[in-house]
Amino acid sequence: MTSASIDLNADLGEGFGRWRLTDDEQLLSVVTSANVACGFHAGDAVTMRRVCDLAAERGVRIGAQVSYRDLAGFGRRSMDVPPDELAAEVAYQIGALEVFARAAGSRVSYVKPHGALYNRVVRDEEQAAAVVDGVLLAGGGRPVLGLPGSRFLDIAAKAGLPAVAEAFADRAYTAEGTLVPRAQENAVVTDPGTVVERSVSMARSGVVTSRCGRPVAVRARSLCLHGDTPGAVGLARRVRERLESAGVRVEAFV
Amino acid sequence: MTSASIDLNADLGEGFGRWRLTDDEQLLSVVTSANVACGFHAGDAVTMRRVCDLAAERGVRIGAQVSYRDLAGFGRRSMDVPPDELAAEVAYQIGALEVFARAAGSRVSYVKPHGALYNRVVRDEEQAAAVVDGVLLAGGGRPVLGLPGSRFLDIAAKAGLPAVAEAFADRAYTAEGTLVPRAQENAVVTDPGTVVERSVSMARSGVVTSRCGRPVAVRARSLCLHGDTPGAVGLARRVRERLESAGVRVEAFV
Amino acid sequence: MTSASIDLNADLGEGFGRWRLTDDEQLLSVVTSANVACGFHAGDAVTMRRVCDLAAERGVRIGAQVSYRDLAGFGRRSMDVPPDELAAEVAYQIGALEVFARAAGSRVSYVKPHGALYNRVVRDEEQAAAVVDGVLLAGGGRPVLGLPGSRFLDIAAKAGLPAVAEAFADRAYTAEGTLVPRAQENAVVTDPGTVVERSVSMARSGVVTSRCGRPVAVRARSLCLHGDTPGAVGLARRVRERLESAGVRVEAFV
Amino acid sequence: MTSASIDLNADLGEGFGRWRLTDDEQLLSVVTSANVACGFHAGDAVTMRRVCDLAAERGVRIGAQVSYRDLAGFGRRSMDVPPDELAAEVAYQIGALEVFARAAGSRVSYVKPHGALYNRVVRDEEQAAAVVDGVLLAGGGRPVLGLPGSRFLDIAAKAGLPAVAEAFADRAYTAEGTLVPRAQENAVVTDPGTVVERSVSMARSGVVTSRCGRPVAVRARSLCLHGDTPGAVGLARRVRERLESAGVRVEAFV
Repeated sequence: MTSASIDLNADLGEGFGRWRLTDDEQLLSVVTSANVACGFHAGDAVTMRRVCDLAAERGVRIGAQVSYRDLAGFGRRSMDVPPDELAAEVAYQIGALEVFARAAGSRVSYVKPHGALYNRVVRDEEQAAAVVDGVLLAGGGRPVLGLPGSRFLDIAAKAGLPAVAEAFADRAYTAEGTLVPRAQENAVVTDPGTVVERSVSMARSGVVTSRCGRPVAVRARSLCLHGDTPGAVGLARRVRERLESAGVRVEAFV
Repeated sequence: MTSASIDLNADLGEGFGRWRLTDDEQLLSVVTSANVACGFHAGDAVTMRRVCDLAAERGVRIGAQVSYRDLAGFGRRSMDVPPDELAAEVAYQIGALEVFARAAGSRVSYVKPHGALYNRVVRDEEQAAAVVDGVLLAGGGRPVLGLPGSRFLDIAAKAGLPAVAEAFADRAYTAEGTLVPRAQENAVVTDPGTVVERSVSMARSGVVTSRCGRPVAVRARSLCLHGDTPGAVGLARRVRERLESAGVRVEAFV
Repeated sequence: MTSASIDLNADLGEGFGRWRLTDDEQLLSVVTSANVACGFHAGDAVTMRRVCDLAAERGVRIGAQVSYRDLAGFGRRSMDVPPDELAAEVAYQIGALEVFARAAGSRVSYVKPHGALYNRVVRDEEQAAAVVDGVLLAGGGRPVLGLPGSRFLDIAAKAGLPAVAEAFADRAYTAEGTLVPRAQENAVVTDPGTVVERSVSMARSGVVTSRCGRPVAVRARSLCLHGDTPGAVGLARRVRERLESAGVRVEAFV
Repeated sequence: MTSASIDLNADLGEGFGRWRLTDDEQLLSVVTSANVACGFHAGDAVTMRRVCDLAAERGVRIGAQVSYRDLAGFGRRSMDVPPDELAAEVAYQIGALEVFARAAGSRVSYVKPHGALYNRVVRDEEQAAAVVDGVLLAGGGRPVLGLPGSRFLDIAAKAGLPAVAEAFADRAYTAEGTLVPRAQENAVVTDPGTVVERSVSMARSGVVTSRCGRPVAVRARSLCLHGDTPGAVGLARRVRERLESAGVRVEAFV
């Protein structure tokens, strides 16, 4: 019998200037991978530096959470950015973060698209390829983190980048193993106990109960936790504790 | 008798999105060091990439032209940015540019502050130290380019960074060898022939005629050329040609 | 026999800070309606003020050229902005411009969407309605300027706003009277003489030769001229002169 | 014996996009004048609209809280903005807010500079005059709110604008009646009970205890309350209740 392992990732450093959003200090004591905002949807330079310092100190992997250039919309508005622009902007963000990761004695270990870009590259071939181009442009062959079955992970894998799938313990899944769209009823799992149990099930057996009540395979090397809602950090901590007490090794995927 | 050598630097990539300012293509056939805008006063990611590609292709050194975050003011408005913010923002810009320099097979070889920041760090100890901190934070011990006698070059040198002085063939100098402030009459030398002759004099003998008519020492390893006015590229080309025909080696300082 | 009249509109004030794009001074001696950029895709406050002053001085109508918030993309990238945000942002832009129009002794007489927003509201019901909501929110029942047959003009008309159709003398039309998409061959009419003749034909008879060579009705109270390409102002002037010599009254639609 | 009256003002709508700062809903049940952020240091269009709607509904006066263009620094970094730019940017902000105030059945009743601009126009003649020019440019002769003795209020008064002085119950005052600079010890009064008593004293007798322990005259028609710290709203409410129970009429200055 093999022992299971799982990575826990969360979005961090999503303030800007005077504004804060996530409790970075607390989250960094829970997760193994930190998706750090790089200034396009959130994340000023001081925050990026501080988060990188803390992450490196605690052995948390640093990832570039790349986004459309959209502070006003927090990167949540899909944009028709031409591929060459998108690729260059992705590389720009990775480079900016790399400076702080290096200064902290670490490096940018992976790349994860944010918000509307994350959702768009699930199906949009052109933008998915552009993000992959941006990652390649930034050098180093960094792994990318995304939705299993997405065009993004497919294209990344074909380009020779490690393509890492993530799952969401607080989202409902269809019988086919895809996410129930947020617009639909019961798309989000709100009961903390259920979220915790789903995390363990996903990590140990790669299986979760679909909305139809039947088990469905959801293979993922990382679970995405949220840090921007009340109680989020507490729930994240419970997830980690239960995983560990269930014998799951919680460790970064890189 | 030693043969003289001089670097020629100019600001490039100072457009943003739809807007262009400098004739990058032409300037890159004249200068040996390109001060590339990094997105804070000008310079979108696509432009940064294109300028780095062209510069690398032609063997022109790439420098990070770091600025206050001020697109609306083109970085020309002095700002009371706290030192930790300024240092982090400088590092952020260097990191972003480094990605495109590396992708082009080159690297960010030096750092030069832009506009109001350039002027402020001549005397402002705190901001000068912050810019130096930012350069150090970005790693690599990169040389900095600035005004001789400035606090910036002093602090950089003390911090162990190569501090490179530049001169301006199109600016009047006082008897003490400092720039005549722009607000004063005759601060700018407009006659092209005079600019060319001053360039040669600066490069060969480190001497220029001050506004009082007497020679004054202006020691500089680099001459700053301008690219954003009509006729600027033509004048830059004449300067380079005359330097070369006068036996001055035109070569990058790094 | 009635004498024909036509409005000539053009985009103005599309610089930002250090950057210029259009020759506002020259264009304002040709057009009767100025679509003034309001700061979201271009147009800083100083430019807005100057353009309004010039326009008022010359009796040119001032219109708010409203856009997505996208300086980096010049408003040319379609964005999924939620309707309440879009409506509020449209109203914000109108209000900002109104201050300068009033200070110049004029007012914002109409509203025209810019770039990607202009194209999107041709078919996107939700965003078209949001722009109309923004115009209504700003008060005054201002006319809107757009593409004939667009959802935008329809919804505006239903909401009680004067909906003014415009045509393009430098664009090819299909046999149905719609614009040939830019991606297709020969979408743009480049010969100046042809552009001038098409302008006169559109203004006098509301008819233009479609790409199939047959006349097609293109009813429009305004012709859109361009000011951001070399020779644009010269062509605009020729259009106006030929219209006037052909007996067409060139006058604002409001 | 005359009965005293006082205005209570606070900064509102200081979020941006995804980020919130102030509890606008609660503060609007306490203050009589709302200083609404206009998009330059904070304040997106949706927030501006919502705050104006709420303020109008509750009879709270709407003021434009104008700022340097500095989202990253929350308008807290002094900037050398040329006067014509500053004036135009002030007018732009007032115009944008006016649209939402009008839509809510109210109007922009006054103007108050924010953050670094507020502090700078205390002594900087040029910028003080530029802000006044901006207010005049926006028309309507709106009152301005600022620090007693500031160049800003002086210049505004000379220009014919009502110049309204405000005081701070949570700040220490010198024997001369000026604010103890924040950098000095005990500059801020932190004990809630003391803040409440100072409010009443200021409102009833125009007198407050200076840091030397002696009473000093602080004449102000408005008290500035803060809403961006924990407990701020509760304290604001206590201030208002004590003022009312002490027989002070709490009412807007316009």
